[in-house]
Amino acid sequence: MIIAIDAMGGDHAPDSAAAGALQAAAEWSDITIKLVGDEAKLAPLIGEGKPNLQIVHAGEVISGDDEPVRAVRRKKDASMVVAGRMVKEGEADAMISAGNTGALMTTGLLVVGRMNGVERPALAPMIPTLDESGQGTLALDLGANMDAKPEHLAQYALMGSLYREKVHGITNPRVGLLNVGTEPGKGNELTKAAFPLISELPVNFVGNVEARDILDGVCDVLVCDGFAGNILLKALEGTAGAVFKLLKQELTSSFKAKIGAALVMPQLRGLRSKMDYKEHGGAPLLGLNGLVIKAHGSSDAEAIKNAVRQAKIALESQLVSSISSSMQIMVREQKQTDEQDAAYEQENEQISGKRVTD
Amino acid sequence: MIIAIDAMGGDHAPDSAAAGALQAAAEWSDITIKLVGDEAKLAPLIGEGKPNLQIVHAGEVISGDDEPVRAVRRKKDASMVVAGRMVKEGEADAMISAGNTGALMTTGLLVVGRMNGVERPALAPMIPTLDESGQGTLALDLGANMDAKPEHLAQYALMGSLYREKVHGITNPRVGLLNVGTEPGKGNELTKAAFPLISELPVNFVGNVEARDILDGVCDVLVCDGFAGNILLKALEGTAGAVFKLLKQELTSSFKAKIGAALVMPQLRGLRSKMDYKEHGGAPLLGLNGLVIKAHGSSDAEAIKNAVRQAKIALESQLVSSISSSMQIMVREQKQTDEQDAAYEQENEQISGKRVTD
Repeated sequence: MIIAIDAMGGDHAPDSAAAGALQAAAEWSDITIKLVGDEAKLAPLIGEGKPNLQIVHAGEVISGDDEPVRAVRRKKDASMVVAGRMVKEGEADAMISAGNTGALMTTGLLVVGRMNGVERPALAPMIPTLDESGQGTLALDLGANMDAKPEHLAQYALMGSLYREKVHGITNPRVGLLNVGTEPGKGNELTKAAFPLISELPVNFVGNVEARDILDGVCDVLVCDGFAGNILLKALEGTAGAVFKLLKQELTSSFKAKIGAALVMPQLRGLRSKMDYKEHGGAPLLGLNGLVIKAHGSSDAEAIKNAVRQAKIALESQLVSSISSSMQIMVREQKQTDEQDAAYEQENEQISGKRVTD
Repeated sequence: MIIAIDAMGGDHAPDSAAAGALQAAAEWSDITIKLVGDEAKLAPLIGEGKPNLQIVHAGEVISGDDEPVRAVRRKKDASMVVAGRMVKEGEADAMISAGNTGALMTTGLLVVGRMNGVERPALAPMIPTLDESGQGTLALDLGANMDAKPEHLAQYALMGSLYREKVHGITNPRVGLLNVGTEPGKGNELTKAAFPLISELPVNFVGNVEARDILDGVCDVLVCDGFAGNILLKALEGTAGAVFKLLKQELTSSFKAKIGAALVMPQLRGLRSKMDYKEHGGAPLLGLNGLVIKAHGSSDAEAIKNAVRQAKIALESQLVSSISSSMQIMVREQKQTDEQDAAYEQENEQISGKRVTD
């Protein structure tokens, strides 16, 4: 099992990537880690290294400010692009990057390549939940697909469900559709059209879910278009941030409150970190011809190592080929339905034609 | 100035409507309040009454479970419908209802009627903000228009700006467009097309705003389609609720934390109520041929009285006619632009036609 790590992406690159790679190589001897980036910088960070850790030299770097499509097209020797090419050409089974999200999505699309039948790959981060199980919900798409079609949402439902089953070991994961009400008829044109499509899939569809119930853990997979998903995630993030900020202000407003605040601060910190979606692992890019994981930009060594664990589980559980088979079945069934519809219409036309001429 | 109150809608009807009407009639002698509903029930609640408070009998009631369109069409004698008809026929200058939101929007559309040039009226509640001024932001549309067009969003921008200026006395209110990033090119097809339209309006457009910054008070008017607005509002509500719930749990988890919690509880309660959008006044329905205000379903007498104050300010400031004039200018300019475009195209066709035939 070979996992490529883009060593040059992220706020703490290349240090955290190198340290994380060393930890992962030490923990799992059955994985070979290929650290992709500037050899001159990486070699001293690795030191003596590990037998299952190799450096793959890549001379260029895609930065956070780079325009994604142009950067991926022009910087052929960028660490991110090289890692993507390794997945494409079978030199690696998966890649991990903490770099520019847009560029990584572009690398996925243009270098690794879309899976047959998938129109729009999806970025699927975890949103933390505050219920007892605290298992979080996998939300997709939170990527660049701002104007999704109903069929895209149906594909997200299937891919997300397989991911949670295979990688997180959840039996029969509950799939919810982000909507403005729980009744089936609710929503905008997109969600109203997506609802019956998801209902027909072999997933545990629990129907529409409302934004206010997400944190209570009402579903394991949350299906949404990129626009609505972004509004949701940023609203959760913003509210939690604003509440904690104001709480701090209020708790230092009087002497009595200050003493109280000192006593409850550990609990507040614990709650703050529970709410922090950045601490909830890397986000897979689903619907590609290979495994690509987006680690958070602020990833430290621990986070990189966790992303390797995530990749390892996904690879062991044959995630990508499972998604691929499901997509093929979905596409085939869709084609059959379309053909049946066409045949039916033709027949209908003939019948009505006959009646007219009779 | 005559204000009709639907006395039979809301969780605490008719008591809170009657009590609120009494308070309002006592406070403002220049307003005549017409309390619309079941006379047999209302008369004892009013007792001796006030000279400027009258009961208008209406025999039917629209409940929270009623299907909005059918209820408004069939229950011609429902208190909500009667109040709407009074506005339509000039027997009242404004109406207030704490009843079924969908039915009130339908009453607005079918009974009071749309303003000339407005395709979709908007429901515009306040979202509380946690910045120092705490002025909140008026968000629209949060009604039934799930699939808005760019032109609708532009109209919301103009109507919302006028409302905040006239009713809340904000000079040059900042208008923001809810979006996934602050750069002008960001968004889905809807927001990308709406951006240039809003830029051309005579409003203080501050550009795109992100969901995470709303609570910091980045704008006084937040423009969004009904779907995205619903996701935002429910996410704010849900996160605040979940955080406070968990906070309570955490704060009773140890003896030390319990003592701390007791000391900070007043601050927590204050914060909780700051976050409660239900406490931030009634939501106007903008774009109708008259003033309609939706008071929250759980309104008490105080909330009803506040809604009367809100209506009074709106009426004194000529809100509806201001919006109407702006809409006429907007429609006229749009028509001119369309005609110019058509003339230009025709000319172009003639020129290219000439070239072809030359």
